[in-house]
Amino acid sequence: MTDIWLPTLVTDTPQAGFELAITLSRRGVKYTQPDPEILKRLRPIYSEDAKALMAASQIVAINFQTIAAANNYWRK
Amino acid sequence: MTDIWLPTLVTDTPQAGFELAITLSRRGVKYTQPDPEILKRLRPIYSEDAKALMAASQIVAINFQTIAAANNYWRK
Amino acid sequence: MTDIWLPTLVTDTPQAGFELAITLSRRGVKYTQPDPEILKRLRPIYSEDAKALMAASQIVAINFQTIAAANNYWRK
Amino acid sequence: MTDIWLPTLVTDTPQAGFELAITLSRRGVKYTQPDPEILKRLRPIYSEDAKALMAASQIVAINFQTIAAANNYWRK
Amino acid sequence: MTDIWLPTLVTDTPQAGFELAITLSRRGVKYTQPDPEILKRLRPIYSEDAKALMAASQIVAINFQTIAAANNYWRK
Amino acid sequence: MTDIWLPTLVTDTPQAGFELAITLSRRGVKYTQPDPEILKRLRPIYSEDAKALMAASQIVAINFQTIAAANNYWRK
Repeated sequence: MTDIWLPTLVTDTPQAGFELAITLSRRGVKYTQPDPEILKRLRPIYSEDAKALMAASQIVAINFQTIAAANNYWRK
Repeated sequence: MTDIWLPTLVTDTPQAGFELAITLSRRGVKYTQPDPEILKRLRPIYSEDAKALMAASQIVAINFQTIAAANNYWRK
Repeated sequence: MTDIWLPTLVTDTPQAGFELAITLSRRGVKYTQPDPEILKRLRPIYSEDAKALMAASQIVAINFQTIAAANNYWRK
Repeated sequence: MTDIWLPTLVTDTPQAGFELAITLSRRGVKYTQPDPEILKRLRPIYSEDAKALMAASQIVAINFQTIAAANNYWRK
Repeated sequence: MTDIWLPTLVTDTPQAGFELAITLSRRGVKYTQPDPEILKRLRPIYSEDAKALMAASQIVAINFQTIAAANNYWRK
Repeated sequence: MTDIWLPTLVTDTPQAGFELAITLSRRGVKYTQPDPEILKRLRPIYSEDAKALMAASQIVAINFQTIAAANNYWRK
């Protein structure tokens, strides 16, 4: 993965920051399991199994903490 | 999802912040599993299974950390 | 839930803060599963199953982090 | 529980802080499951089952974060 | 492990920081299970089982929090 | 445990801090399950079972957050 997919943690709005948290979460999964075939096979499991879905959503929440802090919580 | 659902992390009260943490948590789940049919099928599981319910509540706690910090803990 | 149950994160003592963390944790569970009948059925499970009990206690620990920070750790 | 068991988060040393984190973790479990009979029955499970033991140890790590911050990391 | 594999937490870009978070996560696993034979046997499990994959990705997210803070979020 | 095993959170390098995070994690497990016989029996489980290994590695990541903050991220 030599493409630049994360040039900055700064976003204009909290919502854009939340979407960046989703991106970070997906990238973390991809780095851990880079094989696209296996990922494709797993996706239905972790998005249809309640506990795996909760675990995936926890990762989003942790990454949003990081991004929100990076943006100083978009305070004006 | 192009609607604006998260214009700010600032809330008037801690309780409103807690409710925003619930909203964030639900949105994170929806981004991970956008199919409303599957979500509807999963909801009874993760809200009636003790471990999945605990996992969902952990996400709320993590998001409340973020929102509380954003509001400087509503200190006066 | 329109009653005011969280007017402030500030408490007089660390122990009162810890008890508020318990309250927050219970509220998070209630928001996720508002049906009191289902909750009543689940309570014996998550408080008698070792892993669910640990998960519930993790939520308390995360909420206590938030409340302790809000109170500037009750430093004098 | 009306006894005072948490008068302060401040400790003299990191090690005393770590031990306080253990105390906090045990209290969190007790507040969640106050029945001493059930707790006694669960203790062998969560301390002999690898996954429950790891979950219990995570709570200690989270509480140690809080206490370490409260003590400004015992920096001199 | 006497080689120097972590001389600094500082990276030039957020993306390099994210990759360092992956490295930290792998090292943590290796310190916990240093036997390369067992690790090799486990790798297909934790990268092909949805829940173990989510758990691995959570570690990355936690380590990225640390590294992002260390880099002051690469703010300019 | 009356020996002094944690005199300070300060380390010279990030790598030494990471190793201290391992020590903290092991101590937390030992405080939770002090019986060395049971621990010996559990070790092969939590280091050979993918999910328990991930849980153990999460504890390391959480403790490294604490130690990195204590060392002000070894910034110069």
